[in-house]
Amino acid sequence: MPGQRSDARRNYARILEVAEAEVAARGAEASLEQIARTAGVGSATVRRHFPTRQVLLEAVFHERIQALAEQARTGAAAKDSRAALLAWVHDLLAYAVSARGLADALTYQPPGTDTAPDSCGSVLEAAGAPLLRRAIDDGAVRIDLTFHDLITLTVGIALATEHQAAPLAHANHLLEITIQGMARG
Amino acid sequence: MPGQRSDARRNYARILEVAEAEVAARGAEASLEQIARTAGVGSATVRRHFPTRQVLLEAVFHERIQALAEQARTGAAAKDSRAALLAWVHDLLAYAVSARGLADALTYQPPGTDTAPDSCGSVLEAAGAPLLRRAIDDGAVRIDLTFHDLITLTVGIALATEHQAAPLAHANHLLEITIQGMARG
Repeated sequence: MPGQRSDARRNYARILEVAEAEVAARGAEASLEQIARTAGVGSATVRRHFPTRQVLLEAVFHERIQALAEQARTGAAAKDSRAALLAWVHDLLAYAVSARGLADALTYQPPGTDTAPDSCGSVLEAAGAPLLRRAIDDGAVRIDLTFHDLITLTVGIALATEHQAAPLAHANHLLEITIQGMARG
Repeated sequence: MPGQRSDARRNYARILEVAEAEVAARGAEASLEQIARTAGVGSATVRRHFPTRQVLLEAVFHERIQALAEQARTGAAAKDSRAALLAWVHDLLAYAVSARGLADALTYQPPGTDTAPDSCGSVLEAAGAPLLRRAIDDGAVRIDLTFHDLITLTVGIALATEHQAAPLAHANHLLEITIQGMARG
């Protein structure tokens, strides 16, 4: 029944579009009922396409996470691994600050403890861990820093600045402090 | 009417007791309706004692925040200001990790931008800023680190580790990294 399948595809695209706007406005706690109402479908239809909140959030963030993964793969082959890693972490932070809900999603599924290979955390880790490894091997980063540490610190800065009037400037400053250390060198 | 006043005091104490348990279990988003139901009072009574969620959270955290403030005042007079500051930040982090909702409350009212002198952020800043100042003057901490930076980084680590199975160990490790820096020294 091709008609039913194209209906389903249209519903999927419509729900995802509405979900992106709702998650951007309200973060990871966006109401699934509100998303269904705005999309003009029933709650059961939302649940059929996105069985859990986590699956919905993954879909919302998928495109940008793929772009960050691609950037990390390119960076891992760059001559200056330190500069590539720092640029990547700053871009990840900027996205986490702008996309409410991504930081929440990453705290629920820290890289390394997550088994779903398509999840945001897994996709970021698969691409980002080699970049971190390069920077450690090149002596730019402390050898005991794990990818999980890096993501958790970045996510924490995004969460802690979320309610500030102009979060990105302060978030970037805090990331610089975290890179250099609070203690006087 | 002393009878009414003592009723009000009993209600206040009862609501606060229930609120402490609810906030510990559910964090800053604890349901005010649920608190009213469990305390056996109407929502209007809760609102009369605690007009906003922020006021309720402040009351829940008041006692421990006062203890942290006292510790900071003692630390500001200690011989080793670096050790006193580090011990204080670790204790603040431990409390933020254990008391769900405190970190949320502090992100809504970053010290320095908050005007309510009794708020958690203000009480912490009044006592903690002199301790940070001492550590900066003694050359232990970078001179551009503000108290707001210190609190925001600590709160961020608490928020980002909140859903982990054993958050305190990882949170403490991340605080050490933030103190020393992710970059190789």
